[in-house]
Amino acid sequence: MAIVDNPALLSDLHRRLARIGAMMRRDGFDAIIVSTNANLLYVAGRIVSGFAYVEADGSAIYFIQRPIGLSGDNIVYIRKPEEIPQWLREHNRNIPEMFGLEFDTENYSMVRRLGLLFPHSGYASASGILMNARKRKTDYEIDRLRASAAIQAKAYRRIPELYRPGMTDLRLQIEIERELRLAGSIGFFRMCGGRLEMLMGSLLTGSNADAPSPYDFAMGGAGQSASLPMGADGSPIAPGQAVMIDLGGNADGMTTDMTRTYCVGQLPERARKAHALSIEIARAIAQKGKPGTPAAELYDLALDMATRAGLADFFMGHRQQASFVGHGTGIEVNELPVLHLRSRDLLCEGNVIAVEPKFVIPEVGAVGIENTYVVRSDGMENLTPFPEEMIQLD
Amino acid sequence: MAIVDNPALLSDLHRRLARIGAMMRRDGFDAIIVSTNANLLYVAGRIVSGFAYVEADGSAIYFIQRPIGLSGDNIVYIRKPEEIPQWLREHNRNIPEMFGLEFDTENYSMVRRLGLLFPHSGYASASGILMNARKRKTDYEIDRLRASAAIQAKAYRRIPELYRPGMTDLRLQIEIERELRLAGSIGFFRMCGGRLEMLMGSLLTGSNADAPSPYDFAMGGAGQSASLPMGADGSPIAPGQAVMIDLGGNADGMTTDMTRTYCVGQLPERARKAHALSIEIARAIAQKGKPGTPAAELYDLALDMATRAGLADFFMGHRQQASFVGHGTGIEVNELPVLHLRSRDLLCEGNVIAVEPKFVIPEVGAVGIENTYVVRSDGMENLTPFPEEMIQLD
Repeated sequence: MAIVDNPALLSDLHRRLARIGAMMRRDGFDAIIVSTNANLLYVAGRIVSGFAYVEADGSAIYFIQRPIGLSGDNIVYIRKPEEIPQWLREHNRNIPEMFGLEFDTENYSMVRRLGLLFPHSGYASASGILMNARKRKTDYEIDRLRASAAIQAKAYRRIPELYRPGMTDLRLQIEIERELRLAGSIGFFRMCGGRLEMLMGSLLTGSNADAPSPYDFAMGGAGQSASLPMGADGSPIAPGQAVMIDLGGNADGMTTDMTRTYCVGQLPERARKAHALSIEIARAIAQKGKPGTPAAELYDLALDMATRAGLADFFMGHRQQASFVGHGTGIEVNELPVLHLRSRDLLCEGNVIAVEPKFVIPEVGAVGIENTYVVRSDGMENLTPFPEEMIQLD
Repeated sequence: MAIVDNPALLSDLHRRLARIGAMMRRDGFDAIIVSTNANLLYVAGRIVSGFAYVEADGSAIYFIQRPIGLSGDNIVYIRKPEEIPQWLREHNRNIPEMFGLEFDTENYSMVRRLGLLFPHSGYASASGILMNARKRKTDYEIDRLRASAAIQAKAYRRIPELYRPGMTDLRLQIEIERELRLAGSIGFFRMCGGRLEMLMGSLLTGSNADAPSPYDFAMGGAGQSASLPMGADGSPIAPGQAVMIDLGGNADGMTTDMTRTYCVGQLPERARKAHALSIEIARAIAQKGKPGTPAAELYDLALDMATRAGLADFFMGHRQQASFVGHGTGIEVNELPVLHLRSRDLLCEGNVIAVEPKFVIPEVGAVGIENTYVVRSDGMENLTPFPEEMIQLD
């Protein structure tokens, strides 16, 4: 028996571990101890309470506290991580001379505690290796991303039926959240960096689209409460407003981003022009992005198109503007690479990138689209095909 | 102007900071730098991207990166935390000799970075101070907890109408999630410890109630996917099964827990007896819990009552049993104190504790109740009054 039953996932795990192992050998790590949920899901294929001990040969031992009932050659039950070194010695395994820990995602207390497991060894950050391994999606991951995109398509198709004149932005958002859940989304989203928070995403309309956010999302919104300041704030959707819907899908822990814009009544010419430009920018990025393309160049391309159209002041926000036009997505929202002004990343095959050239038009709301693409050897393939034109709700 | 507009919240923040300041003076801290969301919400009353610099006199300076547009005497905009020491010097503020950081909740990289801000000073963990300050809820917090309980009551009242014969556990859970959102819940839950994850809570029925969980929740459930293994797994709700509903409320970031049990068809005598005993245990705990009561004694009381009734094997799980019967709740689920076998906490006035004496009856499901209580000088007051008897759905 093994850590997961699904044979496709199991062989995918071997490929993930082999990739991590190669990076470990390059960087001089003998072992990495993985202890945070997103990375555990990546190396174990499931959420466990415990520690994945990954070795440089691409193998892993899963030291598990909970749940009970798993069994397999490489599954070892422990009560606390201090039992790991003793188990390794008793089973004639090498004690690592240099081991890696998750400096960027594990809390300080736990890193210090795990750092004492091998007192005669050195340890350093393995966060970079794990993030860089994860940025090249595997076949199984892309399959699950397609499932997530299908969930979103099923829910988004229902949006025109869900709309009722006079309804609030929040009410419409709640009805779409339900549709996403009914379509199979687990509804929960992991976020890179520890400071991002959201329920399932955001719906923005009218002036609320320009409410500055504390979070590093593309768009803001005041939210229902200062305790979760993002997305719909309970305002009625009024004629002349755009309704931007950016609610995520999640299939087996893999997340796609897809944004579409709807409208009520007649929108000003500038808003329609900006929406059409967003579609053009997304296509231009998808055409230009290939393995080796600098991520920053794709941001420059987008900003340049916005500037030439006289819409730079509204690009990626108005009162508060973001300096990126896309971001990796997978187990977490905002993975690598980020299509940021100052990114030093080059695209590589298997990157999955949500591209979201959006505009905030004061009083009207936010317009534009977002698609999630996978980078192939010859270009970017859209994982979220769905009509992109603005749809009239009334 | 100030960090928040609401005068009641603002004066509450002063009380919170005064309490933290007193603990800082006791423990020899001159300053604490707060940088993680749950603690930022506690000391700033809102989510910001930035750093709250709390001084031992009970004052705070908010060094903010985002959102733009806040202003006030103690609000300073920065791009990076390295600007904090310079600002303090330029404004003739004391440089701390000893400062505190969030060792238990902030990642290792950020703690090391913040630790370098004052290179001639010492730093230590302030996580204990912040958790202990937060465990005594303020008037404003209790008001918001009552609002959260009202949201839950409104949604739970609708449960019998939402049930349809033959529906799956997941479908019923999704409909209740929607009702909670419509009743005003922000739907998002912060969790202590970094390893807990959930959407809005769980609904458990039949054998799934006994599926062991990796998470440190009272009950398990396989969930929809191994990527989020908790709660409903998509099984049809069948006659003879209990349906335990434990879906949280969240008003302005404050969370209450309330569990109620429903049933379909005729339940075996043992399940009905265990449910009645759960109500008795909750009442016994609420009667015994006073400022000074050891938290572990309340767990012992519960286990003793379960044992005397011959139900110890089913108490807090069956295949995998938890060793606690309640936990603090507030900004996060699972705050202090925990009513755990090995807890060393004494209850104190203002603790808010979710008490959840639950039983898992094989094949039938989970039964029992959960209420959230606030500890008063003379006993525990129930913040979640709602009928406790098992309700027949069909």
